Parts: sequence; C-alpha cells; structure tokens
Amino acid sequence: MTDRGRFITLEGTEGVGKSTNIRRIEQLLATRGIEVVTTREPGGTPLAEELRTMLLAKRAEPVAPLAEVLLMFAARAQHLERVIRPALLAGKWVLCDRFTDATFAYQGGGRGFDVGVITDLARIVHADLEPDLTIYLDVPVVTGLGRIKEGERDRFESERIEFFERIRETYLERSRRFARFRCIDATGSLEEVQDRIVRSVQEYLDQCQ
Amino acid sequence: MTDRGRFITLEGTEGVGKSTNIRRIEQLLATRGIEVVTTREPGGTPLAEELRTMLLAKRAEPVAPLAEVLLMFAARAQHLERVIRPALLAGKWVLCDRFTDATFAYQGGGRGFDVGVITDLARIVHADLEPDLTIYLDVPVVTGLGRIKEGERDRFESERIEFFERIRETYLERSRRFARFRCIDATGSLEEVQDRIVRSVQEYLDQCQ
Repeated sequence: MTDRGRFITLEGTEGVGKSTNIRRIEQLLATRGIEVVTTREPGGTPLAEELRTMLLAKRAEPVAPLAEVLLMFAARAQHLERVIRPALLAGKWVLCDRFTDATFAYQGGGRGFDVGVITDLARIVHADLEPDLTIYLDVPVVTGLGRIKEGERDRFESERIEFFERIRETYLERSRRFARFRCIDATGSLEEVQDRIVRSVQEYLDQCQ
Repeated sequence: MTDRGRFITLEGTEGVGKSTNIRRIEQLLATRGIEVVTTREPGGTPLAEELRTMLLAKRAEPVAPLAEVLLMFAARAQHLERVIRPALLAGKWVLCDRFTDATFAYQGGGRGFDVGVITDLARIVHADLEPDLTIYLDVPVVTGLGRIKEGERDRFESERIEFFERIRETYLERSRRFARFRCIDATGSLEEVQDRIVRSVQEYLDQCQ
C-alpha cells in the first residue's frame, strides 16, 4: 500500500468555514502536483447523498439514535467502496469534508450515543483505513453558530448550544489523542485561518517527502 | 418481561404467499382475543419505508453489500424503537413480515456476505430481542419465482435462480437450528397452505397457555 494516495479529512463544528477552506487545501495540493478527489460526508455518491438528505431533513418522526448512526455508516460504507478506496488505490489523494471523527463527535459526544457501538461499527466498516491527516478547525461554539442564520439551520444545526459544546469537547479530546490530528485555531479573519491551515498542510507535505 | 406480547415473524422467499397468509394468522390471533400489530421489514415506519424504497429500487449505482446490510439494520433499529418494542411492552403481539432471518438468508446466503458481520449487527441492534415464533413458508425456488411476473420484479427479485437457492438453503438450515422456527410446506393450494399455518400457530398458542 506504499503507493496509495493519502487520505485527508477536514473536521469542525457548524460555521467554522470548512467549505471555503477545503478549496484552499485542494489548491495547495494541486500546486504540488498532487491529484486530489474532494468529497464530503455524509454523501459523496448518489446513494450516500440521498441518505444525507434523509439525515439532515427535519421530520415529524423522531430518528432513533442507533438508526442515525447506522445510516451514517451505511452512507460511509458506500462512499468508501465507490469513491474513497478506488481513488486511494489509484494513487490519488482524497480530501474529505468530515469522516468517522464526526460520528464520534456528533452522535457520541453531542447525543451521548454509546461510543463502544461507534467503535464497533468503525471497525466493521473501515478496519483497514484511517485518515492520514485530520485538520480540525476549532472555534468557540458561540462564534461558529453566530455565522449561520437561524432560518437556514438543518436538523443538526437546530440543536441547543450544550450539544455543540459536547461536540467541540470530543473533537478537542480526539485532537490530543491521535497524532494524525492538527487542531487549527479557526477564529480571526478568513486570511489568518487559511494561513494557519496552509502552514499545517505544508508541514505535513514536507514530512511526506 | 412476562407480560410482554409475543413477537411472531413470517419468512420465505419470493412468491411464497406471505402477504395473503399473514392476514390469516392475524385473523386467527384476533379470534383468540389477542391484540396484534401487523408490520413488515424493511419498513414499518415512515423513515424505514423510505429506506425500503431505496433498497428495492433498481439503480445505476451498484450498492455495496456492506451498505445494503447497514441500511437494513438502520431500518430495523428505527422499526424496533418506534413500533416493535413499544407494542410488545404494551402487551400487544407483533406479527412481522420478515426480520433478521431474512438478512441472514438474503445478504448472508444469497449474496455471500460475511455472516459474522450480520451476527455482530444483530447483537448491536437487538441483543435483547429475538422472535418467539418464526413461520417459514417453504417452496422450491422455481415454484415461487413462477408466481411473479418478470416485468414486476424488483432489484432482489431480478437476481438469478442460484441466488434464491442459496436463500432457501439458509432458511432451511436456520429452521433446523432454531427451535422457534416452524418450517411450513407452502406448495399446494392456498387453502392447504393456510390449514398448515393455522395448525402450526394453534399448536404454539396452546403451548403459550
């Protein structure tokens, strides 16, 4: 597997500027001549995007926490099989907006769902593969939520502030635990944040060579 | 849990007459004064029925076998939480057209998917609950398939005959292994089959008292 591409994930809570910053990382990798597949979770294939729509929709029927976690991993299994693994095997790099760390953070931390079950499912779905590098964009919860208009919030974004505090704590805890994490201060201007991200990714690229 | 209702599942391959026969069982239970909730898998709640539609649709994108199994269990987790467990706890009986035995038969037997993973998922999703009685309607594969018009076949029904042979073998093997199974010969006239089912369910009811 020495020739396989690298798997980079981008993580963070709401309003942290993931979408804008992922383009900057993509650009940086391109200037180094790296072929990149940019994708996102949940989603990344037609079936997985359908599941994303189901997961984010506000619905009258409460979604059982276990059903939610299984849907996340179903979308992930499809995404891995159809997009991520084939790209990595072809030597391309994969840049993914959220991955299993988000399940630990949102379902485990946010909803208090059994972390043992998430661990079991992660083992079932991708025992062979962990991200090589995870860029975590950190902002205080109030700053992040302030950036999203109330009427535009989806089922997750409509949760209470304590929910997002627990998510952030889980991300910070995982940042300390796993060497693949880079915890980036995402407060300040877009330019400042992008500079920090670029520096961090460049350091990683320099180690790769 | 002594006051909880009983959980009865009906299993069988395509064209075996499950829909017609489930009404007969429902009727029989009603004559004994038992309150019954009749439901089906995949499905049984609005979200789970959406997942059923996704699973049965023919689509251009091949569905990864692991994604299919996770979707089945996601629908099942939702169905258990919203319909099956509340009904059983309220003392009602639940009569369900297919359950986890179908996942072992279709995904495990039919598609050759890792049975260890199905076992792990069954443990995660319903370690607390197995059917009390499983009526398996058995017909030779050619007889069953002959009862469905070719143009009306869904993604599963369009599989090759060997697929259905492996499904039947799995059902027969599970019938021998688990005491909760009743293997019913579903060849012959509807009346003959219903007589066999009624006799089998009556025997079970007599044991219950």
